[in-house]
Amino acid sequence: MENWVPGFLAAFPGGMATADPEELARNAGDAWLASHLPQAVFYPESGESVVRLVQWASHSGVSITPRGAGRGYVGGCVPVRGGIVVNFSRMNRIREIDPQDGVAIVEPGVITAQLQEAVARIGWFYPPDPASAAESSLGGNIATNAGGPRCLKYGVTRHYVLGLEVVLADGTAVRVGGRTHKNKVGFDLVGLFVGSEGLLGLVTEATLRLIPRPPHRVCAAAVFPSIESAAGCVEAIFGAGLLPSALEIADRFTLERAREFCPEPLPPGQAHLLVEIDGHPVGVDAEIETLLPLLRRSGAEEIQIGRGDEGGELLWRTRRSFSMALKASGLTKLNEDVVVPRRRLVDLVRLGSDLELRYGFPVACFGHAGDGNIHVNLMVDRSQPGADRRAQEALDLLFHRIVDWGGSITGEHGIGIAKERWWPLAVSPEVRTLHRRLKNALDPKGLLNPGKFV
Amino acid sequence: MENWVPGFLAAFPGGMATADPEELARNAGDAWLASHLPQAVFYPESGESVVRLVQWASHSGVSITPRGAGRGYVGGCVPVRGGIVVNFSRMNRIREIDPQDGVAIVEPGVITAQLQEAVARIGWFYPPDPASAAESSLGGNIATNAGGPRCLKYGVTRHYVLGLEVVLADGTAVRVGGRTHKNKVGFDLVGLFVGSEGLLGLVTEATLRLIPRPPHRVCAAAVFPSIESAAGCVEAIFGAGLLPSALEIADRFTLERAREFCPEPLPPGQAHLLVEIDGHPVGVDAEIETLLPLLRRSGAEEIQIGRGDEGGELLWRTRRSFSMALKASGLTKLNEDVVVPRRRLVDLVRLGSDLELRYGFPVACFGHAGDGNIHVNLMVDRSQPGADRRAQEALDLLFHRIVDWGGSITGEHGIGIAKERWWPLAVSPEVRTLHRRLKNALDPKGLLNPGKFV
Repeated sequence: MENWVPGFLAAFPGGMATADPEELARNAGDAWLASHLPQAVFYPESGESVVRLVQWASHSGVSITPRGAGRGYVGGCVPVRGGIVVNFSRMNRIREIDPQDGVAIVEPGVITAQLQEAVARIGWFYPPDPASAAESSLGGNIATNAGGPRCLKYGVTRHYVLGLEVVLADGTAVRVGGRTHKNKVGFDLVGLFVGSEGLLGLVTEATLRLIPRPPHRVCAAAVFPSIESAAGCVEAIFGAGLLPSALEIADRFTLERAREFCPEPLPPGQAHLLVEIDGHPVGVDAEIETLLPLLRRSGAEEIQIGRGDEGGELLWRTRRSFSMALKASGLTKLNEDVVVPRRRLVDLVRLGSDLELRYGFPVACFGHAGDGNIHVNLMVDRSQPGADRRAQEALDLLFHRIVDWGGSITGEHGIGIAKERWWPLAVSPEVRTLHRRLKNALDPKGLLNPGKFV
Repeated sequence: MENWVPGFLAAFPGGMATADPEELARNAGDAWLASHLPQAVFYPESGESVVRLVQWASHSGVSITPRGAGRGYVGGCVPVRGGIVVNFSRMNRIREIDPQDGVAIVEPGVITAQLQEAVARIGWFYPPDPASAAESSLGGNIATNAGGPRCLKYGVTRHYVLGLEVVLADGTAVRVGGRTHKNKVGFDLVGLFVGSEGLLGLVTEATLRLIPRPPHRVCAAAVFPSIESAAGCVEAIFGAGLLPSALEIADRFTLERAREFCPEPLPPGQAHLLVEIDGHPVGVDAEIETLLPLLRRSGAEEIQIGRGDEGGELLWRTRRSFSMALKASGLTKLNEDVVVPRRRLVDLVRLGSDLELRYGFPVACFGHAGDGNIHVNLMVDRSQPGADRRAQEALDLLFHRIVDWGGSITGEHGIGIAKERWWPLAVSPEVRTLHRRLKNALDPKGLLNPGKFV
């Protein structure tokens, strides 16, 4: 293929198109290991400019890889075949927040936390809260159907996307869904684009569902003598009819790293559970009164309570320090967001210990116990000879076991490049064929995010 | 085409296949007007028998129309091109209810209320509650992505489907999604099949998400002097940070019919609001204490309170009598489940009155105010000359206005045959093309539920 870059730059004067080497480097990777330079970058400033870009690319046979804030964990936005990266960071306006209709309309480059905060200021609530909310974009959240702790009670990103404007692979702009809270007009095209990792279309606008902000929340953080007792407590909480807004678990290794790293002292213990209840203040207090004896009966040795946004935030800071403590170890953190049927929680954490013994690097497990979505972090010293190979073997064993248990190899991050190796393990040949048929139907030339799992 | 029926009956001995005229008649229509006889009916008893049937049909070029309990409102299961109706009523086993994993595994013919009750008996909760729950099947709910009053807080059927076994148009059985509460493996194929109205595949098993049963609920039924004051109250409720588990509105005409019909006396007033709060008993009581002054400030003239399942059920009986009262009028009830952005609630009810004046038949509006999903019922005396034409004109006007307002012509029932006329009004040519591309990708011979909107 001849060098199309000069023609591309000439076709899009005015600062949206660039082939500056620093810009290429800035758009080559995400929060994972992989990286590949694009040949050009396009910074659209409107849906209309995306249409023109995709029309040009489709006509020229140049591939396009959409990019949100580049905070993904699986290399989903890495342009493995070069081409043009479409970086949505300039399309970062919140176009509308309308509490009467219960909707927000946003451009894809809006940072998730900015929407959360803007909505909270007027007493409303956008529940999806991926751990990266302060840095990740809503467009990226939509591409991966992002989750977070609050999914347990409130559901994933998909449940909050009412409508999308999408530019298809041939440059056609379509509006699917709309501004209403229910919609049964035709197939669920909104759902098809949410979570499609940039393979089926480019989202240029999203209409999101807002709900009233729960007026109060209380967190309880409990330390348990064993991971078994903490996992047993998860079951007891549901059995008591409680549906917490978050229910997070952490294992021994995570706690040890956190004790070294945390500004606040962490009591001794082998496992940690963070339970958040939200709702009407009186109701929240009553549910906490139900919760505390449950925690104690399950073996909790020490329980800290954080009331309201401020008190809760203190405990969440500890929870968030787990991830930072692991990163501070200087090791490469391979964060695998596996999901198991809930009864396998203990088996999963034990598997983490097995991997640790067998392959010789630390394994830290923590995450969303309530929906069985645990982040299994392999802490790898890549400077050691054979480390990458052993990590690969450990991941092979992990994912095989997960699939044997009826689990899912990814709950929030997606397949991208990082999990491509296990894509055939996770889904049957027939389901892979189905993916290819859908891809061919929507992007017959294979121009959108090429080189990925489908 | 030669008569394939004898060959079909011979290929499936043993009682699953039939061409008995009474059976054909029983499988010709649903809860709407349209009806068309199939040439044969198949009553599968396992997923494997569905595979064999679809393989046979695909090979023979005979079309297939799947059928749940036949309680749809849009003729979605009417076999308008004849062929074989696949009636799932014999596949009605609840295969598993597992509170530890928080899942139920069901065959598509299970009646929705039977699952709800089985799950409630062990203290768990399957929230989707279409008004037809006592008669409709889970397979039908999945085909239409059924809703109901509780969607406001808990979401639609889609939010509770974790995994599906689907037989594709060529007879291939695929498993999509699974047993985990989160899953980001590939595209959202579960979402693509949910709500696809039998056009993309036949669901033979579903894995559903269960949540802990809220231990308590309280209902408040309030009568307002005007529909405006009732609609204003909806806004006030959300503004106070309350997210009721149901928030139902009814207009003057509905109340008048209900007063004639209802065993319990209904106080005078022009509009009715039913608010249900569920959760922890103490919290529910506190939220009701917040709610009552809101109702009064918005103009509620009389408020009835129903506590617990029993007290709540009394008020729900009144709410449900609305629909029965309308049916008892002897008129044909054209139930249109339109959705508007919430701020249009009052406009929508006024439009109902306008239609009444203009076309001369009563129009009753009631439904799920909380998500703007109002059932607009045109009460037509079809024995009158020109009644069908005038109903058509009234619906034309209704749906045009809904679309102008950014609303949706169906929130729960689907397109089927009933709304096919307005399908091009509701979605752009590009979105219709997208539907055709997906249909061609999954069912290139057009054998599944042919003659429908795509």
